[in-house]
Amino acid sequence: MTVFAIIGHIARTDGNFSINDLPGTGGRMDVLCRCVNTSLFLSHDLRRDVECYLILCGEPSGPKTVRFSGSSVRSLSPDERSAGALIKKALDIPCGSEFREAAPGISVRKGGLERLMTEHVFAVLDETGKDVRGEATLPGAFLLSDHQNFSEQEEALIKDCARYSVGPKCLHADHTITVLHNELDRRNCGWK
Amino acid sequence: MTVFAIIGHIARTDGNFSINDLPGTGGRMDVLCRCVNTSLFLSHDLRRDVECYLILCGEPSGPKTVRFSGSSVRSLSPDERSAGALIKKALDIPCGSEFREAAPGISVRKGGLERLMTEHVFAVLDETGKDVRGEATLPGAFLLSDHQNFSEQEEALIKDCARYSVGPKCLHADHTITVLHNELDRRNCGWK
Repeated sequence: MTVFAIIGHIARTDGNFSINDLPGTGGRMDVLCRCVNTSLFLSHDLRRDVECYLILCGEPSGPKTVRFSGSSVRSLSPDERSAGALIKKALDIPCGSEFREAAPGISVRKGGLERLMTEHVFAVLDETGKDVRGEATLPGAFLLSDHQNFSEQEEALIKDCARYSVGPKCLHADHTITVLHNELDRRNCGWK
Repeated sequence: MTVFAIIGHIARTDGNFSINDLPGTGGRMDVLCRCVNTSLFLSHDLRRDVECYLILCGEPSGPKTVRFSGSSVRSLSPDERSAGALIKKALDIPCGSEFREAAPGISVRKGGLERLMTEHVFAVLDETGKDVRGEATLPGAFLLSDHQNFSEQEEALIKDCARYSVGPKCLHADHTITVLHNELDRRNCGWK
């Protein structure tokens, strides 16, 4: 199982956004939709052993966490609107502190990073970390930030986490997930 | 300069599609929009030394080729709709056999793969190729297919091209571009 969690600092936390304007009304929900895509999609297949957590921290009622479970998700297409519509559906239902399923493989609960860190041992993926290719082993849970840097409060929470980098350039979160998957795929399949 | 060309086998060749339905009315234009994104975007920056060619082969008047030039493109955001709107704008103008600019850095002409292959020496990126990590040097121009395999006619055109693979899993074209960029970035920056 590989776990990705992405913080959406201004991502809307109710369903009151338009899937025709994910960047604007969604609070850069487009970034998170692309992370769902790169976390879960293979060509003509899904990565069934992946969970992708979106930590939504925007207005009006954040934080909330939406979970996409590769093992059970259905009706997900690679385009941004498809993931956006499923996120909207999840945010439209009332939720409490435990995950509630909004659609097959898509669940939502109240709470954000602090809670999630009690459940997974995350390594942070950012440009300051150690090169993933140089590590003998890699962990199974990775935390990324969206288009904004981690906040001071988040940095305090993750200060003891291992940090890894996927390369010399500063990449979008979704691209970083793609490169990390490639590194894990190679190791799992015996490619050097 | 790095060049990517992606064949959109059913991608619409006039502007008569909706950016609210890139997969359907656009003939899987969403795939090509994501390839524009991964070809050109760095975090808070653009890859100015990249050209991305979309070879559109769908109805009603294909093939046409749309070129995104990283050196001069403006007004491009990472979301699919942004690239989709620029492609639509390019397909809305009359064009001939030479590139005509539809917006800064976005040009369009009639013609497809055969013409483009007289201008660039492409290597093919697909799952049958040699592992890019094992190659001492890599070329600068790469050809990919969208969600469909290369057609018989295309296979005949590319039969003498070098073929490379980025890893053991069969990936979407946009993900493949991301991994290839990472390999080139590492070589250009002295990372192993």
